[in-house]
Amino acid sequence: MKIAVLGSYSTRYGELWDSRFTDLLAQASCGALADAKIQPSDIDYIVTSSMCSATLNGQLNVGAMAADILRLNVPSIRVEGACASGALAIHTGIAMLEAGKADVVLVNGVEKMTDSSHTITTQSLMAAASYETEYSIGATFPALFALVTRAYMHHHNITREQLAHVSVKNHFHASMNPLSHFHKKFSVADIMNAPMVADPLSVLDCSPVSDGAASLVLATPAFAQKINAQPIYIIASTLATDTLALADRESIITCKATQLAARNAFAMAHLTPKDVDIVEVHDAFSMGEIIALEDCGFFHPGQAAQATVNGDTYFNAKLPVNTSGGLKAKGHPVGASGVGQAVEIIKQLQGRCGLRQIKNASIGLTHSMGGIGATVGVHIFSRE
Amino acid sequence: MKIAVLGSYSTRYGELWDSRFTDLLAQASCGALADAKIQPSDIDYIVTSSMCSATLNGQLNVGAMAADILRLNVPSIRVEGACASGALAIHTGIAMLEAGKADVVLVNGVEKMTDSSHTITTQSLMAAASYETEYSIGATFPALFALVTRAYMHHHNITREQLAHVSVKNHFHASMNPLSHFHKKFSVADIMNAPMVADPLSVLDCSPVSDGAASLVLATPAFAQKINAQPIYIIASTLATDTLALADRESIITCKATQLAARNAFAMAHLTPKDVDIVEVHDAFSMGEIIALEDCGFFHPGQAAQATVNGDTYFNAKLPVNTSGGLKAKGHPVGASGVGQAVEIIKQLQGRCGLRQIKNASIGLTHSMGGIGATVGVHIFSRE
Repeated sequence: MKIAVLGSYSTRYGELWDSRFTDLLAQASCGALADAKIQPSDIDYIVTSSMCSATLNGQLNVGAMAADILRLNVPSIRVEGACASGALAIHTGIAMLEAGKADVVLVNGVEKMTDSSHTITTQSLMAAASYETEYSIGATFPALFALVTRAYMHHHNITREQLAHVSVKNHFHASMNPLSHFHKKFSVADIMNAPMVADPLSVLDCSPVSDGAASLVLATPAFAQKINAQPIYIIASTLATDTLALADRESIITCKATQLAARNAFAMAHLTPKDVDIVEVHDAFSMGEIIALEDCGFFHPGQAAQATVNGDTYFNAKLPVNTSGGLKAKGHPVGASGVGQAVEIIKQLQGRCGLRQIKNASIGLTHSMGGIGATVGVHIFSRE
Repeated sequence: MKIAVLGSYSTRYGELWDSRFTDLLAQASCGALADAKIQPSDIDYIVTSSMCSATLNGQLNVGAMAADILRLNVPSIRVEGACASGALAIHTGIAMLEAGKADVVLVNGVEKMTDSSHTITTQSLMAAASYETEYSIGATFPALFALVTRAYMHHHNITREQLAHVSVKNHFHASMNPLSHFHKKFSVADIMNAPMVADPLSVLDCSPVSDGAASLVLATPAFAQKINAQPIYIIASTLATDTLALADRESIITCKATQLAARNAFAMAHLTPKDVDIVEVHDAFSMGEIIALEDCGFFHPGQAAQATVNGDTYFNAKLPVNTSGGLKAKGHPVGASGVGQAVEIIKQLQGRCGLRQIKNASIGLTHSMGGIGATVGVHIFSRE
């Protein structure tokens, strides 16, 4: 497969008190159109992802809103797969192009999370888990991911200190990203001494609640050629699922859906993990980055933490991971995050990332997870 | 286009106190698989629609749930476009087949609405409208549709009594559908004397809050041939959008999104409204049926009400409309309704509708609306 990315845009992530849900969606979609140098009338189809718009913003039918913002009457749908919603939107947008339903598709991810109480936000996020066996008995995602983290640390003999290096790196990257929710650098000691959320995860192991939006303009290669664009290409797009409830898994220290989606993506792109120059993975919790890197095949099981300690995943090292700052430090507006990851990879492949720009990037990969691994999307991007 | 429907299933609609959200989804998806005579392992992709699962059931990530029920790890996404969600799911499932991402797609629609308070249900449904200009100032859908109804009655000089015939017919049809929420027949006087909800709409002009689910198994024609199936075909699938807020419309007595979606569907199918033998349209409110029939091109503007009075839209008349009982009387489990409409058309084309079976049906059409016309989906089905 080969799909052209004509334009990409991410709003700033953070507590954006002066921006409504609609404002964020408008800013991202218009930003991507401007970047693509096309008009709204060029858009044939819109796919928008949002996770919590009903519970946090009283707003469904966000597809119609996205078309309305651009004064269009085109087909416009919303897709949702919890925190992987953004990846689902890209995947579905690609399908509309491949199905011949469109030449140009606008893909949006948007979330406005900070206008609600902590209780409502926590409840909204827990809807990504199993209501019956997790949400209803009071589990939270930090609690569930703490179980995963403890099990992994025990199985692979990993220390709390090793794990802390994930957040240190991602906050360092975020300090160079003007769009990040956080810009402060932290030490290993800072991470380890931060207030505990769910042992062993401190608040600096957990991604924040953020507002933000991101958009892509996707097109058929034929359309890209017609307008003389110089696109980045998406050369693989895969989804996979696993049990909704953590308790139903064969293993909780690997993610079957990530393994399946990554394996299928590499097969689709005719590439191996060794060919990848830059990665954005779903680090909603620091252990998430470790497990995702292993499940995608970048490191052997049990090796990713030490590689992180060694500095191998910094922006200027062997395999730059989460140069945007990741969900941990760029921020995690849940429905936008998957699209935002793609924006970072695209900008890196285009050489537009300023201080955190990596060298000679040709192939990039994004990995998004919804729930605790129940829904996963993987995309591979190529400069050529 | 030509997509094979291998199987279809609708649960009973109603206040299903003994069925959880998961139960409804499982019953419908397994029912459709059994009807298609295929195994879960034949499914390559799942698309599920639900509108209010987050707000009424505390459950997102319903795509992963749908795969989990069948013990599958396949790509599985949720789509949402308010009460048109079911149509969006069918449309997206078709796109996955046309894009070559699957040979067989399971499409589900599901909603469990009756375990919540009336206030929460009303709030959930209002999320389909514009939060900023409608929901937040206290508008409800009956109120908004009452505005539309009054404007239409005034413009086309239609009486309250004429309008009542829509509900009389749909309740009559529902009396012959064992899956219906309601089975009682009503007279014109019953409709007109029922308690007022929003003048001129009485409670018998408004669709109920229902639980229910419906599923389809879609496949490429090549797969259908391979397993020697005798499918019904989908020969058109279109979506269109209009402004989210009613106040932003050029006209409130027609629906631009319906007009666009219907026109494009007939062009895609190389058919005209005259070729259609049976129709299920979105009669969430009785005036909705009248306007939809006109916007789809079955009647001239202002003519559909009198045609209904004349009996032309009964199951044994010129153009059978909502033989299932429609959303009004079969019921309106919002995320399921669009898929349920398709199930009715498919069963009619297969001659499996018992007492309400129409004669010589070859071509059927479904029309689904999300919000007050902001999102519309139209599908055309063919026996051959």
